[in-house]
Amino acid sequence: MTTRPPAEIGMKLEEVDTPALVVELDAFERNLRRLPERIAGRKVRLRPHAKTHKCPVIALQQIALGAVGVCCQKVSEAEAMVHGGVPDVLISNEIVGAPKLRRLAALARAARIATCVDDISQVAALDTAARAFDVTLSVLVEVNMGGDRCGVEPGEPALRLAETIGRASHLKFGGLQAYHGSAQHLRTPAERRAAINQAIERAGRTRALLEANGIACPVVTGAGTGTFMLEAASDVYDELQCGSYVFMDADYGRNLGEDGAPNHDFEHSLFVWATVMSRPTDDRAILDAGLKALSVDSGMPLLHGFEEAEYTRASDEHGKVLLKRPTNRLRIGDKIKLVPGHCDPTVNLYDWYVGVRNGRVEALWPITARGALV
Amino acid sequence: MTTRPPAEIGMKLEEVDTPALVVELDAFERNLRRLPERIAGRKVRLRPHAKTHKCPVIALQQIALGAVGVCCQKVSEAEAMVHGGVPDVLISNEIVGAPKLRRLAALARAARIATCVDDISQVAALDTAARAFDVTLSVLVEVNMGGDRCGVEPGEPALRLAETIGRASHLKFGGLQAYHGSAQHLRTPAERRAAINQAIERAGRTRALLEANGIACPVVTGAGTGTFMLEAASDVYDELQCGSYVFMDADYGRNLGEDGAPNHDFEHSLFVWATVMSRPTDDRAILDAGLKALSVDSGMPLLHGFEEAEYTRASDEHGKVLLKRPTNRLRIGDKIKLVPGHCDPTVNLYDWYVGVRNGRVEALWPITARGALV
Repeated sequence: MTTRPPAEIGMKLEEVDTPALVVELDAFERNLRRLPERIAGRKVRLRPHAKTHKCPVIALQQIALGAVGVCCQKVSEAEAMVHGGVPDVLISNEIVGAPKLRRLAALARAARIATCVDDISQVAALDTAARAFDVTLSVLVEVNMGGDRCGVEPGEPALRLAETIGRASHLKFGGLQAYHGSAQHLRTPAERRAAINQAIERAGRTRALLEANGIACPVVTGAGTGTFMLEAASDVYDELQCGSYVFMDADYGRNLGEDGAPNHDFEHSLFVWATVMSRPTDDRAILDAGLKALSVDSGMPLLHGFEEAEYTRASDEHGKVLLKRPTNRLRIGDKIKLVPGHCDPTVNLYDWYVGVRNGRVEALWPITARGALV
Repeated sequence: MTTRPPAEIGMKLEEVDTPALVVELDAFERNLRRLPERIAGRKVRLRPHAKTHKCPVIALQQIALGAVGVCCQKVSEAEAMVHGGVPDVLISNEIVGAPKLRRLAALARAARIATCVDDISQVAALDTAARAFDVTLSVLVEVNMGGDRCGVEPGEPALRLAETIGRASHLKFGGLQAYHGSAQHLRTPAERRAAINQAIERAGRTRALLEANGIACPVVTGAGTGTFMLEAASDVYDELQCGSYVFMDADYGRNLGEDGAPNHDFEHSLFVWATVMSRPTDDRAILDAGLKALSVDSGMPLLHGFEEAEYTRASDEHGKVLLKRPTNRLRIGDKIKLVPGHCDPTVNLYDWYVGVRNGRVEALWPITARGALV
């Protein structure tokens, strides 16, 4: 397996071979600080989503800046985080099947672990696993915020599930998972506000019903990089699950701010470093980074700082670039930074981050949850 | 890094945790045999593309059935193949930059290595690297077959490049790389025939020009799973580079045969094994396999043997399935095989194949070129 680091500390960026996953550390660190600054003084806490970076080195930096822990989506991802020193993980997802539940319960002997359910059958399965390892798992009820993916409907269905959790011997009710994923990439502030107002109403109504039935709701958790200020300003949400803010990607860059311009709250700090491998015509350059070097599910990557060129098509190992006017740039062997369309699945293609500051490699961080699917 | 095998030999498939990359060995082996059977008696040889499977265990099976070696796209992929026992690799791609060229030349001390150029500047760079390791590299000229990606134009530009290779002290002219990638997924036989007839004309004309100038052309190589019978029937092509035939994917399954029906030359043998993790409504099931478990660049995966259900949307860790009518299948915890939309980038997400025969795990093959980007 490709575990050899892709660079050496002290190398110039220009010397790093391609494709490589590069983090510009100054921009990354500004992003890391900016989110806590934006929510300072509010009651919400930050629990960043580690599904974005898959790297405990980054998780610990987030915790050092005040995060209460991280979110994960998979048990194997949570294992990588706990093994890397993260003391508190919420799996913001449903975990199904006895083997995974055993691993989850065993992990709760080493760290504070919470997870989610959206079906009553899962409560007994979780309780059995927790009992086998003599741990108490915190279990949140996932509520459908309008994205129509997982989650029970707000109100009564969530109440019944919370009551069932409360009756299990080795579980405790942990609160409401109230993430509205499909709101994150709505382009205008008005669209995002409408979607999150609906989420706030659904989560708030459900919490009120629980409390009216004598069930305290320790946490309402949700929000992402596209909407977090809306959840933070509500009186309903307690934790924010933003992940992409550390890196930003081309797709989040298309969200518009209140002024109608693209939102620049956060900076692009994650890049796929690529080489021009062919220059067959004046208007065409071929890069060595295609579908196996970046994910195109949310659109093609952008050529960073080079707007006269457009990455128009990805094949397995090639990226086709259209040059809109003649240029001396992008000769064979030239290297360039690409801003991935979608950071999360792009990160999942790499084993290492190459951390760069002022053009020199300063850090090599293993992406220990790369491929952590199970 | 996730190097732990995802299953145990002898397990039932139902016991294999998800997501996992499953190969149905009977179908896979029929595919492996069928392509050599289809081209038996013709002059073309098979050099399958290892970018599909990224696994020397599979490459050696292909060679045992008559393949002359494999193709790769990257130096690191070729290293994985040679380290796994493959004696003959054509890198059907341009390799740029001194570090990669050094590795390529060093690899030629351990195996027969060929690569491609489409620019005169690369000839000297290759010669320098080959001289440093005292090897002779075989270098093919890539010719644009109409896909407008890499490659020089047919005729004179290819001749000039072949002449330059011939003059280099540590290179030998290896022939023409004449792959028409964009023809592979044209849906009708008529479209594919028109595209490949153009490729045959371009490659044949270029070979004739070389020969008229006293340059023998050892090999004309190209073709993929979508068109290989056309190249095989020509008198121009010597080697076929098919890769996907071993697995088939949903996108290749949409190619039509001469009878207007989907082409069933090869069988789906590669699957993403997934679990239903949520069943929020009667018409919606959520699977635990999303963008990090399969590539959607060529469309959504298919639910194998279950046409009443449609995988409609992939998010990072979730797949949303629409159920067209009520069913007792796809309850929480049920497992199902997905046919990936595109096999190559899907394979690149996994470290292991789980080989299954008659419902039992029989093989665990490491995907040693997974992530081999550089």
